[in-house]
Amino acid sequence: MSITVKVRVPGTTANCGPGFDTVGIACTIYSELELSLSDEGTLRIEIEGEGNGRIPTDRNNIIYQAVQAVLDKVGKPYQGIYLKLYNKIPLARGLGSSAAAIVGGLIAANQATGNTLTQEEIFSMATIIEGHPDNVAPAIFGGITISVMQGNQPVYLRFMPEKMLNMVVAIPEFNLSTHTARQVLPDTITMKDAVFNISRVALLIGALCKGEFHHLQYALEDKVHQPYRLQLIPGMQQVFDAAVAKGAYGAALSGAGPCLIAFTESNCDRIGMAMVQAFAKCDVKSKYITLSIDAEGAKVIE
Amino acid sequence: MSITVKVRVPGTTANCGPGFDTVGIACTIYSELELSLSDEGTLRIEIEGEGNGRIPTDRNNIIYQAVQAVLDKVGKPYQGIYLKLYNKIPLARGLGSSAAAIVGGLIAANQATGNTLTQEEIFSMATIIEGHPDNVAPAIFGGITISVMQGNQPVYLRFMPEKMLNMVVAIPEFNLSTHTARQVLPDTITMKDAVFNISRVALLIGALCKGEFHHLQYALEDKVHQPYRLQLIPGMQQVFDAAVAKGAYGAALSGAGPCLIAFTESNCDRIGMAMVQAFAKCDVKSKYITLSIDAEGAKVIE
Repeated sequence: MSITVKVRVPGTTANCGPGFDTVGIACTIYSELELSLSDEGTLRIEIEGEGNGRIPTDRNNIIYQAVQAVLDKVGKPYQGIYLKLYNKIPLARGLGSSAAAIVGGLIAANQATGNTLTQEEIFSMATIIEGHPDNVAPAIFGGITISVMQGNQPVYLRFMPEKMLNMVVAIPEFNLSTHTARQVLPDTITMKDAVFNISRVALLIGALCKGEFHHLQYALEDKVHQPYRLQLIPGMQQVFDAAVAKGAYGAALSGAGPCLIAFTESNCDRIGMAMVQAFAKCDVKSKYITLSIDAEGAKVIE
Repeated sequence: MSITVKVRVPGTTANCGPGFDTVGIACTIYSELELSLSDEGTLRIEIEGEGNGRIPTDRNNIIYQAVQAVLDKVGKPYQGIYLKLYNKIPLARGLGSSAAAIVGGLIAANQATGNTLTQEEIFSMATIIEGHPDNVAPAIFGGITISVMQGNQPVYLRFMPEKMLNMVVAIPEFNLSTHTARQVLPDTITMKDAVFNISRVALLIGALCKGEFHHLQYALEDKVHQPYRLQLIPGMQQVFDAAVAKGAYGAALSGAGPCLIAFTESNCDRIGMAMVQAFAKCDVKSKYITLSIDAEGAKVIE
């Protein structure tokens, strides 16, 4: 006997502007995962799309690890685990591909084993596996999320803006590990810079919540992480400037990069082309895609 | 010929929890100001209520200075300036008495001289006189405000929560100058503490905006200003704990203190009495009042 489940999980952008380690947004780019569990057989993993040939297909695979974590927790061992990933989320670019993988594995395994875990339990498990909650929260719940660690327990608040917002994402042709991006950050910062970010992130949440997007021009400013990461992404400031020059409200690093996201209501292609051109001037090949906010989060589709 | 105008301005609480220098709330406690301008006469200032006998009644009076700033700006000199203040906002306790005085003077003088200044111009002038925008923004616009300095220009976003919230304010019988409260703050802080506040203030704005007040229990936490100010306010932590023990969502320093504010939907008196008792155990005499959020901001009432 075998059980098959298919889930869809959105990519996510985190560290949004001043909202370092806090603000995440679910994006309309998806990873689909098919999971079959049976009593006999072995582990088999197939990958289509982004990550094919790069993502491990053995027990080091993070989706498998997420699936196994659920099987262990609910006490349902299966010998035969078949995973098929159809992935549109670029890898290691700051669009939450690992969070989507983890969330997909957890939700598919939970659904296949009788849906005994709550969304909050899945959120906790995903946070432990990923190491931080800010990508897994929007991947699970959709929308814009604010994540906080309360002791060892992740907490989140989710909302959708009162108006729709587009995100033009410039995807450069190189990877950046979150580990490298973390290493350039200092251990202490000035009170002035801290207060700068406190005020901007407050404004960012207010502006997103109320749909007062004109505030984004300064609400996306940050002095806590992006200035230190400029050195890791050639052309970052130029791409930000190009996006704003073409009418974007503002732009920010996506996650730990290297993707750069411009926020706008209109002129997406004009902004995207200008971002790609600005990257090109700094000898960085890139492409752009236009996304909006995914409201649904992870869901079982079959 | 003389012109008489009467305005009402709310008291305000700023520095709300993690929202240091950013988040302000207009409160349902008011200062009323009557202004008469005439071509003859001199300066005369009368004060009733809080501040009587303490507020200067000569040209050092901050309301007079605000009135004069408007008269200078709009080019309408008056010899006779009569100011009468009916003030219910306690002085130098962290409830925005000086912001209310400045805003009252500006708005009354603007109204008396033909209403030529916009609210935004008044906001800029008030910010210059007060030195920072976070109390004057809610005093002018009401509701909850997020204030940011964009270069030399103050910017604000105003909203009302989706549900009503009460604030129980414990007012101790001593003053604390903002200057003293600023001096205890360090010039640098750890990245960890900065990120702590960034995430909490994001959650605070989300929780207030959406009326998800259960998040306030951790969304009011702060590591940037309150821990350093504990030493200036005997009993501060005990009062916070007492408020939460009686059902408040959380509590915070009001402005630079020494007033302490508990946020709650119910049990206001039980919470207030517990706060006063906790202060008393630390040999601090206090009283409490229950306020809610003023939605109107400063307004001309006659």
